[in-house]
Amino acid sequence: VSLSLKELAVRIGAELRGDAAVRVDRVASIDTASQGSVAFLSDARYKHNLQSTGASAVIVSPELASGAPCAVLVMANPYLGYARAAQALHPRLRPEAGVHSTSVIDATARVPPSAVVGPHCVIEAEAVLEKGVELGPGCVIGARSRIGEDSRLVARVTICAGTQIGRRVVIQPGAVIGSDGFGFAPDGDRWEKIPQLGRVVIGDDVEIGANTTIDRGALQDTVIESGAKLDNLIQVAHNVRIGSNTVMAGCVGIAGSAKIGSNCMIGGGVGIAGHLEVPDRVTVTGMTLVSKSLPGPGVYSSGLPAQPNKSWNRILARLFKIDDLFRKIADRRSRADDKD
Amino acid sequence: VSLSLKELAVRIGAELRGDAAVRVDRVASIDTASQGSVAFLSDARYKHNLQSTGASAVIVSPELASGAPCAVLVMANPYLGYARAAQALHPRLRPEAGVHSTSVIDATARVPPSAVVGPHCVIEAEAVLEKGVELGPGCVIGARSRIGEDSRLVARVTICAGTQIGRRVVIQPGAVIGSDGFGFAPDGDRWEKIPQLGRVVIGDDVEIGANTTIDRGALQDTVIESGAKLDNLIQVAHNVRIGSNTVMAGCVGIAGSAKIGSNCMIGGGVGIAGHLEVPDRVTVTGMTLVSKSLPGPGVYSSGLPAQPNKSWNRILARLFKIDDLFRKIADRRSRADDKD
Amino acid sequence: VSLSLKELAVRIGAELRGDAAVRVDRVASIDTASQGSVAFLSDARYKHNLQSTGASAVIVSPELASGAPCAVLVMANPYLGYARAAQALHPRLRPEAGVHSTSVIDATARVPPSAVVGPHCVIEAEAVLEKGVELGPGCVIGARSRIGEDSRLVARVTICAGTQIGRRVVIQPGAVIGSDGFGFAPDGDRWEKIPQLGRVVIGDDVEIGANTTIDRGALQDTVIESGAKLDNLIQVAHNVRIGSNTVMAGCVGIAGSAKIGSNCMIGGGVGIAGHLEVPDRVTVTGMTLVSKSLPGPGVYSSGLPAQPNKSWNRILARLFKIDDLFRKIADRRSRADDKD
Repeated sequence: VSLSLKELAVRIGAELRGDAAVRVDRVASIDTASQGSVAFLSDARYKHNLQSTGASAVIVSPELASGAPCAVLVMANPYLGYARAAQALHPRLRPEAGVHSTSVIDATARVPPSAVVGPHCVIEAEAVLEKGVELGPGCVIGARSRIGEDSRLVARVTICAGTQIGRRVVIQPGAVIGSDGFGFAPDGDRWEKIPQLGRVVIGDDVEIGANTTIDRGALQDTVIESGAKLDNLIQVAHNVRIGSNTVMAGCVGIAGSAKIGSNCMIGGGVGIAGHLEVPDRVTVTGMTLVSKSLPGPGVYSSGLPAQPNKSWNRILARLFKIDDLFRKIADRRSRADDKD
Repeated sequence: VSLSLKELAVRIGAELRGDAAVRVDRVASIDTASQGSVAFLSDARYKHNLQSTGASAVIVSPELASGAPCAVLVMANPYLGYARAAQALHPRLRPEAGVHSTSVIDATARVPPSAVVGPHCVIEAEAVLEKGVELGPGCVIGARSRIGEDSRLVARVTICAGTQIGRRVVIQPGAVIGSDGFGFAPDGDRWEKIPQLGRVVIGDDVEIGANTTIDRGALQDTVIESGAKLDNLIQVAHNVRIGSNTVMAGCVGIAGSAKIGSNCMIGGGVGIAGHLEVPDRVTVTGMTLVSKSLPGPGVYSSGLPAQPNKSWNRILARLFKIDDLFRKIADRRSRADDKD
Repeated sequence: VSLSLKELAVRIGAELRGDAAVRVDRVASIDTASQGSVAFLSDARYKHNLQSTGASAVIVSPELASGAPCAVLVMANPYLGYARAAQALHPRLRPEAGVHSTSVIDATARVPPSAVVGPHCVIEAEAVLEKGVELGPGCVIGARSRIGEDSRLVARVTICAGTQIGRRVVIQPGAVIGSDGFGFAPDGDRWEKIPQLGRVVIGDDVEIGANTTIDRGALQDTVIESGAKLDNLIQVAHNVRIGSNTVMAGCVGIAGSAKIGSNCMIGGGVGIAGHLEVPDRVTVTGMTLVSKSLPGPGVYSSGLPAQPNKSWNRILARLFKIDDLFRKIADRRSRADDKD
């Protein structure tokens, strides 16, 4: 796609300073950009790249807008402008609508003419695809589930029976939505399986990463609210609720019935225990264990940064004696008090 | 399914107090239950819900059995009763037996008439499905593997060559059983692959979660004993042994040749190093690192609960100086001793 | 396969001491080996097994070569010898070349006659398989991607559009290569998706584990250099670079734009933050958090070994007061200084 800077400025919501007729056909990073590309600059530390850029235009904040050797597209949030420019210049090619002949569609399923169903998909009884849904190769859509308008399952996604998915949801390959929750009642030493009768309900504009797993609820539903973004290899247990616009980096694990608020940012490898609440607007940094409800918005951590192994072993040896140390110090203090 | 309380009491092994003719057709949680449903109460803290429940019957322990506005089903372990009631009232609909026309079955594989093979499955040479096995869509059953009676692979499960699976095993979507173990011999800077010649052997009544991976053994087998339950996104390396009835929450990683005992409970995100032993009846809490063999049954931990980020940074700064602190205190003590 | 020890010695690069005509047809572990098998011994602690082994030959280092009741194959690195012997005696049976009739191959894709394409694969437009490539059942090869000579995708592997894979690469089941990176620009409270325009580029002789995910780059590429080995359930974010011959155990998570050097060894469950550098020849032990660039080669750790739960709770309580302790000690010192 080729756009004039005039057109692009409108598309991304920026003020154009420069030649409106110049055309661009791709995005690029500011240091490697060449003629015909548009770059962005949002961090003042990289301002030196602006003077030397080969881009035809740079999306930039008002503070950084001077000194460019090319046109600038000025807006408060250049990173957002870049996202919009990349969408405008690099639109995804939508495959032709229609159902591939190798796919197996139950007679009671509803697949509108506008849907794309790639090869080797399976759509079970009473499942519903809404308008413009796109299934890549090898997706399984379980019975009675519903996929909302313009949602896209990239490839080999499994949607288990009864799952409800909103509009414009993107699900990366290998994700599993609606697998059984991990529920077992002890019967002496053995475990009796508890049928998992709830569903997974996903809002609009959610993104779910590759090989991420989201379990159905035990009795009530597991819920992912609109606008939440989940990265790869995340585990969401039964009856979890994730609030709107919350983002989670890869390898997060959330235990059953945890309630995560809206607009949270959960770092990679974080573990969240079950039956607790994380309020709105919480940030949890990488590899932190959230073992209790958090008291309010803010940043929480318990990750341990890597140390040279020898130092770390010394620290550990001391840490495991920290209780002794506290007691010795208390003893000495009381002896000192006796002396005084 | 609709059952009289008389029938239900027999099915779950409870003593009925109330009208034996009342019928129920579903389970529900005690606070949202309505007429026709059966709920359970096992925690004295929620006893207030009993008085106000709308359920037609409540499964309850003898201590909590009084004060219900409806029939009660009394048994020592109400949670187990609930599991059984849910199974009785919400039985899974078994698809019709038979092999879907799109599946590819090797001529030397054995698939009994009672088996269900969904669309797009592949069953390779000499693989054996026993009676009543159920394969959902897109499963791959490798050569010479065997799936025991009444086991169910939900969808898109990969069973690699030679894997042996017991009876009534349930495997959630995306799980991979029998992938190559991670074995490489150093050859200078490069790595030579060591063929992985062992198998995965799984007992009866095992459950394996979505996208969980279990590697085949290098020479001997990787073994999951009967009754073990593994949640989603767990990694089991080659030659690991997991004892009977052990349960593991999501995101656990177990390195090669670790031996985990029976009746253990392993929390989410736990890491278990290779070549060690975890004895029977060990509980490991979430995100703990088991780096050495554990000495006996009991509860083990090393998870760090989240702190406000500022506090945590202060704690970390101090922790990294803990060795200095110990040394200063030892110095001061010896100086104090000199003075005395 | 049956080989004489003479042949085997040549194949593995060892010096034979013993009867060159003896034949072996399998590898075995030294303590369970029987007639016709070859074992190895590399650890002096297990030397007692050598005297009693039932193997027909043992691969052993010069220091441990005496006292065997059978032939010995002497070489500096017996473990490497074992890897080579196992490859020679247990070669993988390559399926017959050809495309299974249930696979869907785009007319513009290139599949040479020497390739194996199992059932239910999908090969999209302009994708290229080089000579001898082997796709197991259910693999998806996205548009314009290329799979190098003699690479093997075991089963149900997803290769997204544009991915470049080198020669002799092995990818275990369920892996996803080239899924969208996790890139979103904030737009008030909601998130705007940033199209992920880079590729994944993988060198030669790489191994990728089951259900591991590797995201495509945002603008530039995500790169896995030749000889790297990745275990199961690893998450590699966009624009990460992993150097040649680096090995990573299961459950590692690497955030965006991290650069990992060559010949590194990354333990299980390690988390590596984004936009940092890990130099060549770094070892990171299990469950460590690498939150900053590491200064040079060496071993780094921050894993906390499991403690009995009660001890751990006491340690934690003290740790969370460590700042108070430091301050009290500093106070007391200054008071002591006042007294002096």
